[in-house]
Amino acid sequence: MAVPYVHMLQSATVLRKSNLYLSHYGCGKFNGKRGRPHVAFASIQQPDRNISIDPKVELLLDSVKWDNKGLAVAIAQNVDTGAILMQGFANRDALATTISSRKATFYSRSRSTLWTKGETSNNFINIQDVFLDCDHDSIIYLGKPDGPTCHTGSETCYYTSVFDSLTEQEAKGSRLALTSLYALESTISQRKAELAERETGKPSWTKRLLLDHNLLCSKIREEADELCQTLENNEDKSRVASEMADVLYHAMVLLGKREVKVEDVLEVLRKRFSQSGIEEKRSRASQKSEQH
Amino acid sequence: MAVPYVHMLQSATVLRKSNLYLSHYGCGKFNGKRGRPHVAFASIQQPDRNISIDPKVELLLDSVKWDNKGLAVAIAQNVDTGAILMQGFANRDALATTISSRKATFYSRSRSTLWTKGETSNNFINIQDVFLDCDHDSIIYLGKPDGPTCHTGSETCYYTSVFDSLTEQEAKGSRLALTSLYALESTISQRKAELAERETGKPSWTKRLLLDHNLLCSKIREEADELCQTLENNEDKSRVASEMADVLYHAMVLLGKREVKVEDVLEVLRKRFSQSGIEEKRSRASQKSEQH
Repeated sequence: MAVPYVHMLQSATVLRKSNLYLSHYGCGKFNGKRGRPHVAFASIQQPDRNISIDPKVELLLDSVKWDNKGLAVAIAQNVDTGAILMQGFANRDALATTISSRKATFYSRSRSTLWTKGETSNNFINIQDVFLDCDHDSIIYLGKPDGPTCHTGSETCYYTSVFDSLTEQEAKGSRLALTSLYALESTISQRKAELAERETGKPSWTKRLLLDHNLLCSKIREEADELCQTLENNEDKSRVASEMADVLYHAMVLLGKREVKVEDVLEVLRKRFSQSGIEEKRSRASQKSEQH
Repeated sequence: MAVPYVHMLQSATVLRKSNLYLSHYGCGKFNGKRGRPHVAFASIQQPDRNISIDPKVELLLDSVKWDNKGLAVAIAQNVDTGAILMQGFANRDALATTISSRKATFYSRSRSTLWTKGETSNNFINIQDVFLDCDHDSIIYLGKPDGPTCHTGSETCYYTSVFDSLTEQEAKGSRLALTSLYALESTISQRKAELAERETGKPSWTKRLLLDHNLLCSKIREEADELCQTLENNEDKSRVASEMADVLYHAMVLLGKREVKVEDVLEVLRKRFSQSGIEEKRSRASQKSEQH
């Protein structure tokens, strides 16, 4: 909460929380023009209060192409893993509140009210940055979730694979929408779980690595060395990518062995490099002498 | 195109392309029941054709909670990086076409027509899997883009940071919505670009690594060794995460030096492990003897 507009927005948030927000819900295109509804509204509802909204926030809210219901799609994404956590809708107030509170906030179409993800579950999504798309009608809430996002307890709301449904004879257990790095992490974790099962035949390479620390560590050292050799010998790019894939895979087996999540590693990197939005700028200013 | 429903859906796609799809646009909730519109429709429009839609695809399409316009939000996500590429809307036909063609397809609300991303630019999004959310009213198209997704030529449509707009005195150049790994990659690439600039003061650590191959390689080997030690000495999890972060960062500087993208590394891993949807199952079946 170290940026000036946060404090300036608090007053608007207080007004909203007293259930007055409906007065300016959909105030953009609905009125045929993009006005300054907060200001006019405040002066009517609370004549004694000196409401001052940062004009930049107003401009920003005005720049969003709200639909004819005053809404835009809002997608919450995990800042470290890139996982799409959930998708909802935002109106002016939801976006303003997300910016001011740094907690992902949506407009519930069924309940006709604002809601901050986590207000009942405590699983807030802590905003690192917010992005608009090229058309300014779609929003990304880039944030760090405090816990599972889905009301079902699932990490994200996307755990129903269409292709699983279409190809499996029997309905399969849920499978999260995982991108490559996390699909690999999940495979390693699966192989680890399978170690407990009695198996016939040759164990997979991942299982052999999980079972034999010496083998795993010698492979990690060997692959790191081979990655270095791609630079030292000026090998081609596809070789660099392939050797890096080897390093990453073997190091991830070690993470799996120790039950350390890739997400935790990325959180370490994010905090070290602080590349997310204004945090980055603040850290850049204060750490100039010790920059990476 | 090795799954049976693909071929079975082709006939439906042909019908749609002859501009008949409006007859069953919004056929879900609109009719007060969830029927089998493709079949009835086909028998009326093309009585001679033996239309046979995989009942599983029909069921799947029926299971989506289309809104009162017959639409659901569809988010295209890069399967390797997790980047949200774009967001549009899908109707029944758009989802059916996405499943059958394996190219991300949307319904254009402004043009009232289906459109496959890439049909004019050739920058298709090649679908690896499709996910529904817990409410079945939001869809992820998980795919590999052939090129930039945005019509502006940007990699994704999300390049306007709200926090940049609010905090910068001057409007800043566009900045993609990057998650931690790619924010770090971008920082390294920035440091590399800055090497050309005349600088006073001590160069950053990243720049020193970029300038000195011996230093970079000795650090990669050293950090890999330290990661192994966390296993060998049974050090705590936070130490494992921290050492892995060191390995990843230094290896990424090497990637930056050689201009190899993390995305390319992840593509290698995806293809090796083939964890995306049905591909994974097919590879699992055929590679049982040499499984990872």
